[in-house]
Amino acid sequence: MSPEPLDRVFQALSDPARRAMLERLTRGPASVSELAQPLAMSLPAVVQHIAVLEGSGLVRTEKIGRVRTCQIEAGSLQRAEQWINERRIQWERRLDRLGDYLALQTKDETKGKTP
Amino acid sequence: MSPEPLDRVFQALSDPARRAMLERLTRGPASVSELAQPLAMSLPAVVQHIAVLEGSGLVRTEKIGRVRTCQIEAGSLQRAEQWINERRIQWERRLDRLGDYLALQTKDETKGKTP
Repeated sequence: MSPEPLDRVFQALSDPARRAMLERLTRGPASVSELAQPLAMSLPAVVQHIAVLEGSGLVRTEKIGRVRTCQIEAGSLQRAEQWINERRIQWERRLDRLGDYLALQTKDETKGKTP
Repeated sequence: MSPEPLDRVFQALSDPARRAMLERLTRGPASVSELAQPLAMSLPAVVQHIAVLEGSGLVRTEKIGRVRTCQIEAGSLQRAEQWINERRIQWERRLDRLGDYLALQTKDETKGKTP
């Protein structure tokens, strides 16, 4: 069974080096060596991280001549954001309803006490 | 070195069972056995997943008598959402600027051709 797309996206986002690469890519496409440059790790390790990002759909790579260029695929980023956003909104709505209910209870109790 | 909070949050979100638990918890607090009930896994596995969720700060648990109750901590969810959102917006702004630039280029070219 292959993991769900969201599994891979969140897995890819769980590593600080991969988040740093994404951060860099939001400013525009970059070659593998440009992505590697600020990171204190071997080129094979960087290539491995890029493979994880590509496998998750967060990044697309293209080889032109001898240079592999990476760029962000906004769709996967958006789907991950949407999943979290929907959960958060659902939770906040529940808190709002709970607040309304408690306010109503308090009002009823106050009424009861001062007829 | 302990992992960054965001590492743990995205790691926690990368598992479908843990996402299903969070999904359930957006509808209100639940006991461990309530969380386990719809999932086809052993109670120890569920407890392990809850520990990961709690370690990431996405979920808070409280033991009252013999029952451990879980509830969402919206803060961690919000921070993860914000991280993704900022990256996506940065990327979209870049695309907008690129679009403006290309439009300007095209305009200049058109001008050049029809003086």
